[in-house]
Amino acid sequence: MKIGLDIMGGDYAPKAAVLGAIEAYKALTGGQTLVLVGDKEIATSILQENDFNPDRFEFVHTTEVIGMGEHPTKAIAQKPGSSIGVGFKLLKEGHIQAFSSAGNTGAMLVGAMFSVKTIPGVIRPAMTTIVPKLEGGLGILLDVGANADCKPDVLLQFGVLGSLLAENVYNMNNPRVALMNIGEEEEKGNMLSLATYPLMKETQLFNFVGNVEGRDLFNDSADVFVCDGFTGNVILKLAESFYVITRKKRIKDEFFDRFNYEQYGGSPILGVNAPVVVGHGISNPEAIKNMVLLSANMAESNLVDKIKQAFV
Amino acid sequence: MKIGLDIMGGDYAPKAAVLGAIEAYKALTGGQTLVLVGDKEIATSILQENDFNPDRFEFVHTTEVIGMGEHPTKAIAQKPGSSIGVGFKLLKEGHIQAFSSAGNTGAMLVGAMFSVKTIPGVIRPAMTTIVPKLEGGLGILLDVGANADCKPDVLLQFGVLGSLLAENVYNMNNPRVALMNIGEEEEKGNMLSLATYPLMKETQLFNFVGNVEGRDLFNDSADVFVCDGFTGNVILKLAESFYVITRKKRIKDEFFDRFNYEQYGGSPILGVNAPVVVGHGISNPEAIKNMVLLSANMAESNLVDKIKQAFV
Repeated sequence: MKIGLDIMGGDYAPKAAVLGAIEAYKALTGGQTLVLVGDKEIATSILQENDFNPDRFEFVHTTEVIGMGEHPTKAIAQKPGSSIGVGFKLLKEGHIQAFSSAGNTGAMLVGAMFSVKTIPGVIRPAMTTIVPKLEGGLGILLDVGANADCKPDVLLQFGVLGSLLAENVYNMNNPRVALMNIGEEEEKGNMLSLATYPLMKETQLFNFVGNVEGRDLFNDSADVFVCDGFTGNVILKLAESFYVITRKKRIKDEFFDRFNYEQYGGSPILGVNAPVVVGHGISNPEAIKNMVLLSANMAESNLVDKIKQAFV
Repeated sequence: MKIGLDIMGGDYAPKAAVLGAIEAYKALTGGQTLVLVGDKEIATSILQENDFNPDRFEFVHTTEVIGMGEHPTKAIAQKPGSSIGVGFKLLKEGHIQAFSSAGNTGAMLVGAMFSVKTIPGVIRPAMTTIVPKLEGGLGILLDVGANADCKPDVLLQFGVLGSLLAENVYNMNNPRVALMNIGEEEEKGNMLSLATYPLMKETQLFNFVGNVEGRDLFNDSADVFVCDGFTGNVILKLAESFYVITRKKRIKDEFFDRFNYEQYGGSPILGVNAPVVVGHGISNPEAIKNMVLLSANMAESNLVDKIKQAFV
């Protein structure tokens, strides 16, 4: 199995990406090969500086890069030779079985939808994030920004996507799916959540446990938290800011430590025909390593096939 | 000036409310009289137990209560003799110049709109909350739940309401108003924020400083953060949960201490024809005291007149 990594993506690329690839190499199993997409010359010199034999990786050389601030759709259309463009071409053609990047998030999303395409039956792919739980373990929040406006049937599908991720990649048994809302009662909410609740209540597609509120994100009320991408993005960035504040204040605590995105590697894009993970722009080598491993886990667990089966 | 307080509202009423009234009495100025609305007998015995002369208060006796779980509109219609119902009657008739309660939030909102009514020109009243800033000082977030679905012109008005609260009650000079969004750029957002941005950008009604993200809530990017009530309620409850977690973990820090809702007393309802404040259900005497003082400050600052002038 070949696992693709964009080594040109992220604020500290290519160095952080290449160093992360070294760390990932040590953790990958025998049948897994890392394919580095980007500037082979620079990567080789970084590897040699670190006494790492470049032959342990496959390379697909390109020097073109989609910048962090570029318009996603334009960049994907105009820069097919960029590391993200090339990575998705390799993924589409089956040369690699997973692809990840800490680069332009929008370009990763658009690239995934344009190349490997959305799984038939999936209305909109979603981006997810991991949230630590106070009592230990993890929760999954989606969507965190791919879809600023959602309809009820889209949120219902996010429940399916999140549930399958929780089950297959995070080994949760019969994951509890909750709807993020502004009250626990069925009759609470905005038009979207009011219309979504009955769909989720009646579905056989996942284990719906009802509405939750903002205060429930870190407790054990549910395993998967579903919301529109506007709400999810505000939640994600607010939670990140709390983590940053606890760091600044040098508060040492096991729970706050588990907010560290580096441990989780990145956000899977769910609902496209291949495993794709987007890392945080500020990813360091540890984060890159975990992003690569997450994309490999998604591939090894056949998550995409399981999602396809759910939407047949 | 007479300041009304519902002594039957809140999880620890009437005791916490009556003890809070004693604290508020000590802080009120000479011309201000507290009017306690609720069970006079119980209140008197609590006051006597605390060696406080009941004659320092005015009482309006009633034993009927709107429960925390009651349906707001039904309760307001069916229980005009409840402490909240009576409080709003006093407010409407001008016997009191401000009214606050830690009771049923929805009933307070509906009661305000049915009794003193919405200020002409205001499309929807809003509920606000205070957020502490990392570098000191406060920010104002609205709406936090009165309006789960909002239109762009409603968010524009929230900017006016929040700006006037910041200026007149929190003494901020030319408060900076920001739109809570999922990106800083003008072209980022959901349909609501995309449609709201140009209205705010062009307005002369307040000092618009652009989009902010979830991570900006505690930094110094703005003084007033505008969002729909769904987003604001999720933000509020998520932030509260962080505060609760830092308490549980016994993390002592000046910034986290300033999350304590007790210091702020409650959420003003803005856009109605009188000062109304809703306290947290779990309000203790300290919170009740600050809720009463906040409602008194709203009355003394003539905030309602200033809002009326802005909407002429």
